[in-house]
Amino acid sequence: MKTIHIGLLGCGTVGTGVARILIQNQEMIRSRVGATLNLKRIADIDIDRDRGVLLGKDVLTTNADSVVTDPDIDIVIETIGGLGIAKTLILKAIANGKQVVTANKALLASEGNSLFRIAADKGVELAFEASVGGCMPVIKTLRESLVGNQIQAMSGILNGTCNYILSKITDDGDTFETALAKAQSKGFAEADPTLDVEGFDTAHKLAILTSLAYGADLCLDDIYVEGISKITPLDIEFAGQFGYKIKLLAISKNRGNAVEARVHPTMIPFDNLLSSVNGPLNAITITGDAVGDILLYGKGAGMMPTASAVVSDVVDIARNLLTGSVGRVPLLSYQKDHIHRIPVMPVDEIISHYYFRFAALDQPGVLSKISGILGNHCISLKSVHQKGRKSGGSVPLVMMTHLAKESNVQLALSEIVHLEVVSDMPALIRVEDSNGSD
Amino acid sequence: MKTIHIGLLGCGTVGTGVARILIQNQEMIRSRVGATLNLKRIADIDIDRDRGVLLGKDVLTTNADSVVTDPDIDIVIETIGGLGIAKTLILKAIANGKQVVTANKALLASEGNSLFRIAADKGVELAFEASVGGCMPVIKTLRESLVGNQIQAMSGILNGTCNYILSKITDDGDTFETALAKAQSKGFAEADPTLDVEGFDTAHKLAILTSLAYGADLCLDDIYVEGISKITPLDIEFAGQFGYKIKLLAISKNRGNAVEARVHPTMIPFDNLLSSVNGPLNAITITGDAVGDILLYGKGAGMMPTASAVVSDVVDIARNLLTGSVGRVPLLSYQKDHIHRIPVMPVDEIISHYYFRFAALDQPGVLSKISGILGNHCISLKSVHQKGRKSGGSVPLVMMTHLAKESNVQLALSEIVHLEVVSDMPALIRVEDSNGSD
Repeated sequence: MKTIHIGLLGCGTVGTGVARILIQNQEMIRSRVGATLNLKRIADIDIDRDRGVLLGKDVLTTNADSVVTDPDIDIVIETIGGLGIAKTLILKAIANGKQVVTANKALLASEGNSLFRIAADKGVELAFEASVGGCMPVIKTLRESLVGNQIQAMSGILNGTCNYILSKITDDGDTFETALAKAQSKGFAEADPTLDVEGFDTAHKLAILTSLAYGADLCLDDIYVEGISKITPLDIEFAGQFGYKIKLLAISKNRGNAVEARVHPTMIPFDNLLSSVNGPLNAITITGDAVGDILLYGKGAGMMPTASAVVSDVVDIARNLLTGSVGRVPLLSYQKDHIHRIPVMPVDEIISHYYFRFAALDQPGVLSKISGILGNHCISLKSVHQKGRKSGGSVPLVMMTHLAKESNVQLALSEIVHLEVVSDMPALIRVEDSNGSD
Repeated sequence: MKTIHIGLLGCGTVGTGVARILIQNQEMIRSRVGATLNLKRIADIDIDRDRGVLLGKDVLTTNADSVVTDPDIDIVIETIGGLGIAKTLILKAIANGKQVVTANKALLASEGNSLFRIAADKGVELAFEASVGGCMPVIKTLRESLVGNQIQAMSGILNGTCNYILSKITDDGDTFETALAKAQSKGFAEADPTLDVEGFDTAHKLAILTSLAYGADLCLDDIYVEGISKITPLDIEFAGQFGYKIKLLAISKNRGNAVEARVHPTMIPFDNLLSSVNGPLNAITITGDAVGDILLYGKGAGMMPTASAVVSDVVDIARNLLTGSVGRVPLLSYQKDHIHRIPVMPVDEIISHYYFRFAALDQPGVLSKISGILGNHCISLKSVHQKGRKSGGSVPLVMMTHLAKESNVQLALSEIVHLEVVSDMPALIRVEDSNGSD
């Protein structure tokens, strides 16, 4: 029976999970693949810590170079993360003709265009199922299962930290700060949560998915990104009264010669299955011309779910090595010469429904002034609610719009904030209605 | 550029959808695969009907034999269905060295053990993504994405007809008969709905999934099957009051040396995502030791969703042909010599929560008699409700149990029906609680 030798770079949370699966489920994997997957070397800066996995003598090393240059090793797994040494080692592994598996969405989203080109030129795999959505098989589904579909749109909850925080605000009435502290105490958020809560991690994932779906170059810098740190319990409560939940969504839409790609808090109606995805879970709806909507759901992070996705890539590559079919599926879903730069539509140009909340003085004529400015900018209202009454002070004035253009909305709001009757910055949340009606 | 030639057997609903994708999306598929997928021949008994797809001269034929023996054709797609001519043609295609794609769950569930062996011996692919769950990529997910996981359980809504009918009873208070008539008028149910509503179609799919998940021989005859024709609006209403929906579930559980495999109406709590899957949609939760729960959701039937799954198989095989890697993934997920007969646990031996509804006389002592018999058979009650009051006549007496053994439940019910105070056959619905508590 043949043996495929594997080298692992980084043995933190995900790396340890990968080692655990490859060792504990080795017999089952062998009975599926028809070959032995042997975890030959692991490089980490800390080789003394007990990781709860029984490793053979000489498996652990602090010398990562010795792993990526080991002539026996067929597949190198990178679970170090970040843009520094991870990139250097991936490049060295590719240069040495190794097949590479990575979960590093930040690196792929930022430097994927060159990395994928280098891997393709060298004729090696660069697999990344674990980079988006943890154990949800979203990369394989886009590249393989939906291969006969023109992808029309995607809409995903791709960051468990944000979804946990929004669920806590929704269920417990927490402020953002309290919910964040809870997420940190549960291990669902980092000490510095910026990458997650400001939407950048979600944008990394959206850049990867958008490229795969449409055969586009990666476009991270063009993605509009807005995080969840300004979401208040008040807006979540009003959303609920209108029949909506607020989720941080990665949204991508095929607009023919351009794509929409944006990350922001979004109101979605209760009957959208994504609205039932709570806590640190991930889910994504993909719309194709043949399938309509399909949805994938699962744990988007964590040791074992992410490791499961890494192992699925390792097995895929092992199967390619065993049958001499490396390069069987193009890295970015489309053949190299069919990957184009597809422009990302500026957020100003999108058309959406909107929710506004104004802190307005409770006096006659306020509604007329605000709605007059909106009307001047072609924004028509579906409903208006004044929530509570406070004589003299300000009260929340909540509005839901019909479809409107973002640039008009921004212009109108910039006028409205200067009204004397408006006492604070308005809240704006975009609304995705599943029926797409006006 | 290379060309892969395709022959299609049967050009009804799904076949027409396949033709439409292969022709209308041919250019996109080429830019992904790097080869041309050419639909060379289509065999159907009716070659005159306009199918709304532009077909070249000489593509259509009534002679199916000429397709499966055509030396140019690489891949044969069977979308005829049923156990008759479809089997004969698949066998002839295999004998002629063709790769085969089928959506025929009835055939695979019944005769898959021999068909897969014959295909494997001949060294050809026999692909079947479209046989379960329409466009949900459940076969690929089990065979490839979860390859590092020991599968622990699966729980699926796999028949759109039943789910549509149950949704109608739930939402509109229809009787089963009215809801079935609505399903038939919408085209969601056949004129003879037995295969769907009595659970047999779901059992076909469960047989396939159970085999793939555990490396087991197909076991259709051992699956316990109970349909939805006895479900009443009353039971659905009571379920709702307890916080449950009723769905026809395919349930499979890994019990070590045996598996559970059963199809029956099941109460699931509102917080189980499957309870939000309404109308003709399909969904499945798969539990693996590494991933925990993942869920797939999408259209389980219909022309284009099913055709999309067929095309994903066709492309997979085309890629194997182009890279010389036919047989890259074993047909039934495990290598031939690792597929075993794994016994299906008789339904008598399962342990479950139960819902009972008795039509009982509204008089003192009734509850004591019924609960006494249940207690004698080690069945303890979680809650008891008498719904309404009708002096002299019978009233519904509803009970939810803690975990109990099916054989004990059946024995207890057979005693209870003989009580004079019980005026009708009791309703029994099994309950799956997501937390698995007692």
